[in-house]
Amino acid sequence: MGRRELSIGLIGSGFMGKGHALSYALVGRVFDDLLAAPRLRLIADRDADTARRAARELGFEASVGHWRELVTHPEIDIVDITAPNHLHSEMALAALTAGKHVYCEKPLALDAASAATMAEAAREAGVVTMVGFNYLKSPAALAAKGLISAGVLGEVWHFRGAFQQDVLADPRQPFGWRFERSLAGSGALGDLGAHVIALAHDLVGEVKQVCAQASTVIGERPEALGGYGYREVAAAGTALRSVENEDAVQALLTFEGGATGVLEANRVATGRKAHLTFEVSGSRGAIAWDHERMNELQLYDSGDPADRRGFKTVIMGPDHPYYGRFWPVAGCGLGLGDTKVIEVYELLQAVAQGRPARPDFRSGAAVQRVVDAILESAQQRRWVAV
Amino acid sequence: MGRRELSIGLIGSGFMGKGHALSYALVGRVFDDLLAAPRLRLIADRDADTARRAARELGFEASVGHWRELVTHPEIDIVDITAPNHLHSEMALAALTAGKHVYCEKPLALDAASAATMAEAAREAGVVTMVGFNYLKSPAALAAKGLISAGVLGEVWHFRGAFQQDVLADPRQPFGWRFERSLAGSGALGDLGAHVIALAHDLVGEVKQVCAQASTVIGERPEALGGYGYREVAAAGTALRSVENEDAVQALLTFEGGATGVLEANRVATGRKAHLTFEVSGSRGAIAWDHERMNELQLYDSGDPADRRGFKTVIMGPDHPYYGRFWPVAGCGLGLGDTKVIEVYELLQAVAQGRPARPDFRSGAAVQRVVDAILESAQQRRWVAV
Amino acid sequence: MGRRELSIGLIGSGFMGKGHALSYALVGRVFDDLLAAPRLRLIADRDADTARRAARELGFEASVGHWRELVTHPEIDIVDITAPNHLHSEMALAALTAGKHVYCEKPLALDAASAATMAEAAREAGVVTMVGFNYLKSPAALAAKGLISAGVLGEVWHFRGAFQQDVLADPRQPFGWRFERSLAGSGALGDLGAHVIALAHDLVGEVKQVCAQASTVIGERPEALGGYGYREVAAAGTALRSVENEDAVQALLTFEGGATGVLEANRVATGRKAHLTFEVSGSRGAIAWDHERMNELQLYDSGDPADRRGFKTVIMGPDHPYYGRFWPVAGCGLGLGDTKVIEVYELLQAVAQGRPARPDFRSGAAVQRVVDAILESAQQRRWVAV
Amino acid sequence: MGRRELSIGLIGSGFMGKGHALSYALVGRVFDDLLAAPRLRLIADRDADTARRAARELGFEASVGHWRELVTHPEIDIVDITAPNHLHSEMALAALTAGKHVYCEKPLALDAASAATMAEAAREAGVVTMVGFNYLKSPAALAAKGLISAGVLGEVWHFRGAFQQDVLADPRQPFGWRFERSLAGSGALGDLGAHVIALAHDLVGEVKQVCAQASTVIGERPEALGGYGYREVAAAGTALRSVENEDAVQALLTFEGGATGVLEANRVATGRKAHLTFEVSGSRGAIAWDHERMNELQLYDSGDPADRRGFKTVIMGPDHPYYGRFWPVAGCGLGLGDTKVIEVYELLQAVAQGRPARPDFRSGAAVQRVVDAILESAQQRRWVAV
Repeated sequence: MGRRELSIGLIGSGFMGKGHALSYALVGRVFDDLLAAPRLRLIADRDADTARRAARELGFEASVGHWRELVTHPEIDIVDITAPNHLHSEMALAALTAGKHVYCEKPLALDAASAATMAEAAREAGVVTMVGFNYLKSPAALAAKGLISAGVLGEVWHFRGAFQQDVLADPRQPFGWRFERSLAGSGALGDLGAHVIALAHDLVGEVKQVCAQASTVIGERPEALGGYGYREVAAAGTALRSVENEDAVQALLTFEGGATGVLEANRVATGRKAHLTFEVSGSRGAIAWDHERMNELQLYDSGDPADRRGFKTVIMGPDHPYYGRFWPVAGCGLGLGDTKVIEVYELLQAVAQGRPARPDFRSGAAVQRVVDAILESAQQRRWVAV
Repeated sequence: MGRRELSIGLIGSGFMGKGHALSYALVGRVFDDLLAAPRLRLIADRDADTARRAARELGFEASVGHWRELVTHPEIDIVDITAPNHLHSEMALAALTAGKHVYCEKPLALDAASAATMAEAAREAGVVTMVGFNYLKSPAALAAKGLISAGVLGEVWHFRGAFQQDVLADPRQPFGWRFERSLAGSGALGDLGAHVIALAHDLVGEVKQVCAQASTVIGERPEALGGYGYREVAAAGTALRSVENEDAVQALLTFEGGATGVLEANRVATGRKAHLTFEVSGSRGAIAWDHERMNELQLYDSGDPADRRGFKTVIMGPDHPYYGRFWPVAGCGLGLGDTKVIEVYELLQAVAQGRPARPDFRSGAAVQRVVDAILESAQQRRWVAV
Repeated sequence: MGRRELSIGLIGSGFMGKGHALSYALVGRVFDDLLAAPRLRLIADRDADTARRAARELGFEASVGHWRELVTHPEIDIVDITAPNHLHSEMALAALTAGKHVYCEKPLALDAASAATMAEAAREAGVVTMVGFNYLKSPAALAAKGLISAGVLGEVWHFRGAFQQDVLADPRQPFGWRFERSLAGSGALGDLGAHVIALAHDLVGEVKQVCAQASTVIGERPEALGGYGYREVAAAGTALRSVENEDAVQALLTFEGGATGVLEANRVATGRKAHLTFEVSGSRGAIAWDHERMNELQLYDSGDPADRRGFKTVIMGPDHPYYGRFWPVAGCGLGLGDTKVIEVYELLQAVAQGRPARPDFRSGAAVQRVVDAILESAQQRRWVAV
Repeated sequence: MGRRELSIGLIGSGFMGKGHALSYALVGRVFDDLLAAPRLRLIADRDADTARRAARELGFEASVGHWRELVTHPEIDIVDITAPNHLHSEMALAALTAGKHVYCEKPLALDAASAATMAEAAREAGVVTMVGFNYLKSPAALAAKGLISAGVLGEVWHFRGAFQQDVLADPRQPFGWRFERSLAGSGALGDLGAHVIALAHDLVGEVKQVCAQASTVIGERPEALGGYGYREVAAAGTALRSVENEDAVQALLTFEGGATGVLEANRVATGRKAHLTFEVSGSRGAIAWDHERMNELQLYDSGDPADRRGFKTVIMGPDHPYYGRFWPVAGCGLGLGDTKVIEVYELLQAVAQGRPARPDFRSGAAVQRVVDAILESAQQRRWVAV
């Protein structure tokens, strides 16, 4: 294709690993101005057999049994980390040390200190980094950012954001890594709330102070005897184990620019599926989004004639960011997978052009600082400066 | 109050009669510019006892046992007809002959010929008439009319309207007057579809040609042994009786102005409650309304910037017709009863000022002509000119 | 009518006074089981002339120039207070001392101490009291309460509530009593947030601890030279005056029963009209409501079949509280005014039957305690026990 | 992968050709039970150069300059036709004659006679055929079909379906092949309405009789001087050419099973983007879908408790058809592209298993018969049996 090639080394072949592989396969077909074609060079997984099988299934040229071999492999340009969260930091630091560009799934790390170290290492390495906050890449979220930047809302006054899911609302779902502090870090906050923080930073600016409460609604869960996918249910009578992190968190926010905010994250929000929402209002307008209707943006402009003011349901189309790369007419509907293709596109373009990607490790560390501040605030029941 | 008084003679104290009485009680309190106060002078009902009780309950000064006495009573200014549909024509003609202003619930008559006679009698009498198509008086419907008249939609191209209810979708509901042709005339069409036609006339102009199909979905219903309210259910084993009019009708329309349209009326539309909806689209914009959310208007303006086009949810407020008479801030929400108060206000103002009210008997007859054309079309399965 | 009569003494003939008068006029016509008919005996207002005019317009038998004369008048059964907020306490205490039943618009008082005194006085007087939190009387809110009480949600885990309006979002709107602490007490919290607290208490139970932030978004407003209705806009160049209370408040809540919550109140929420919303979720289901669509309730039941779970849009009808008193079929739509009629009905029935009304002064004082705790928390930036 | 291989010969590399290529690239990664891997063997396009470039860009092994060479190529298993509509028939017949399986984009042909010939040829050839009505493959549409088949709606009474777009509502958009009868056949009906008919057949059964009206709202369009994509606008003063087919059509339907229906297709429906909707109601329930919110299904069950009935918004998740192949939790959101992957999966599985795919040429011909009947009805302004 005349495109430069960038060799990908992927760590992890679980759900997200598979998703990344799909995105690499698609990105060049969707974006004809792609500057650098991804080459699926190497994959690593928890053991050599798993990695070998994954290479075959996902179309990688080769596999290795340990990720350390991958991150230092001379032919790899981009290390792509989709391994369990508690391994992100060690892997990314090793890759940065080896001078690789790094694409890491969220959360960047289990705590702010690790994330800061990673961001600093990235700065020193001078490479391109990206954190997989793919909701930022939804055309509607990008359109919202554009409208806010263009001043359509006037001065931003208030932010409301929430990520609510009921995916773990059943007390019979067994204890798994998500409930264990050493493996997952925080609970709903790090898993879901981090996306809200990333959106808040993207749309409104950095969070300055927080005050939060956190609760573990389902205090004990059955020990997992086998697998523990979202849809497992333990047999009655299974021994119980204490959940170590929060099911739900609510926080008050103040932003650097003076706006106020409210954030919620909840993994036991009965009835809600992937209910990631935000509403930003300002002196001239307001904008709202609900990921469950990801192809729509709600927009209010107080400059409309008095009898014709209202929230407008703007359906994404070729006039909105990236949409036209997928479909020629509005309303066809992108899916969550398409946002991952956009993310990979932005990563590859940034690497090809030698400029920062967004959100990079610095942004990821900023999100993690807010996560830590919220946890500290909830524990100490007081306001905490980020 | 310094206001002129207009004496009301109400025929019928059923559900609608009670509603009218409520509206008379409220209208002066809601509208401080009301020119003529209604005086609840006389009420008639099926027999003297019923009428006497109704007078006491609804606050009328006196009662009569037969409506003929009322329509010719010298002190009555406005005859208000809420009696069963098959009596409208005879009553209204008598009242017009006596020189009274006449306010008649819809449908004006059971067929177009009777309605035409009534309209002609009204013209000759030179009095004010009004037909109770109260959905036309909803602030959102009035706002829609205003916006269309102001050219916000450009040239009107298409109309879609429907009134769907499931209030009679249960086959165990007994046979009652609604199912009997001699008492009700048509079924869903006259009862529900007439409202859609009235809206179509109001918003787009007169219907010129129709082609329709009608179906009686539940062909037989149990004989009513006692009352037959909407919520009655017959005992199993009750003898069945054939339904005489249509449960559902669908029609294609052409309008005088060249627009096309589709109309539906359905009294067995499982899941729908009072789902009266319209959508009018034109060369520059579109407007849509759903009575179940009667305080909202959907408005699309293709003149908006390309990335900010969408249907706007305009919530009724003081900038919309009549709303400010009820509440000082938007979003408080009017109810269906409030539209009846607006209707009575317009009637009283028209009588006080000696000018036509809207919709008058001429409008009501026009609606009835379309009803008849649709029935004829459905029966003969061909296009019919109105 | 054979009904006992209850003589009403109304203080105030402004917007709310007029609304109460309308409700008294309607209540007997809507509710045929009303035990005690309201008799519009006496009205008081800021001066004798205003009161006299109001009596004529609203249909009261007589008027007095000072409210003290009214509250001690021997023929008055129920004192109805719609005077400015800062006068509620003094008036209600005088009425209670005189042994009258008292119906008082919200907020009960400007601070919790006064409200507690009023509640205590009511207890001692042994009369019926009611506070005008009329959103509680919306059929959908009553249905929500019924479903929660019946256990449909299981154990209640979380509450989200907000009241957002943009009615004061324009900085050109002049300074009026709403912005002055001695006349209004708090700002958005007392005016709007109090409704949310009342709903939270009604649906979930009492609030135990709060942590809040408050902000005055528009710090200065033009001095009002004339009137200061919602729709006034000051001339450019008018001298500015500092706003004394908050435009927006956000609070974290914990409930006595263990549930957590978030509350927002905002009078400068660009784009929102009367956006009073709540969502309550529990171990088995969830329920949500938006006053702008007051005739709909959102209900989720996790006991539905796995492929048929979702929030259900339940449209109010005769199967829901009070609706059938207004209309025989679902979907006709009640308005905000109808909730006031229901409120007056409950008050009159309670007085007639000698049992407490809901919400009474004790409930009103409980709401005010939460208001004060939120204000204290916002000021001191720390958690406060109610 | 151990999978059998099926060699694909793709005709056309325009928008749809590219989409098919994407789907082949994805299908094996999404569906791990895929029985036969697609091998991108050959591509043909309007000339050799275009084909060569397309092969390189879309990843095909080789290219040919004329489609005839492709359809008879001995190594091709499946001929995939995405060429302009007026060529479908000739190409498919040639491929069937050569004994190939055929996957053809909709519309199958420009008229019912051609489509019937194709269906008959397919029957004789005994191969697998499929028509690209990909909206049928949306998980929500599949779930709807499943629920209807399971009897959740009871006896089906009524169907409403519409496809409305405003993509051609601007009169300045130039005349292109879509407006020319010899290239496009019908207008909105064949392009948009055919999808509605396919859904109607899938959900309710075959259409038996139709009565329709069609209108060309924008009678003349500027001659296209260059390209004529959806977003072109002609210069003022460009010579005009008469549009040869309909912009909008509305039809009454009766179904074999006795249900009634209404269909609309409109390519100048100002404000609507990809507004493909259906509502099916029956004796026990109702179901509704709007493609613009393709991940939601509206479901009403009249068996719910009386106070808890309403349309439920069911968000697609792992409990619905195919969703779990893409995402492990509900609400992530599939896009239109994902439906094409599902379609390709079903095609490949059918070929691998030697059983019919759905919808096949017989189904496509049935849709075309309804299209032709509607056109005839609109022209002759009378009911037409299909």
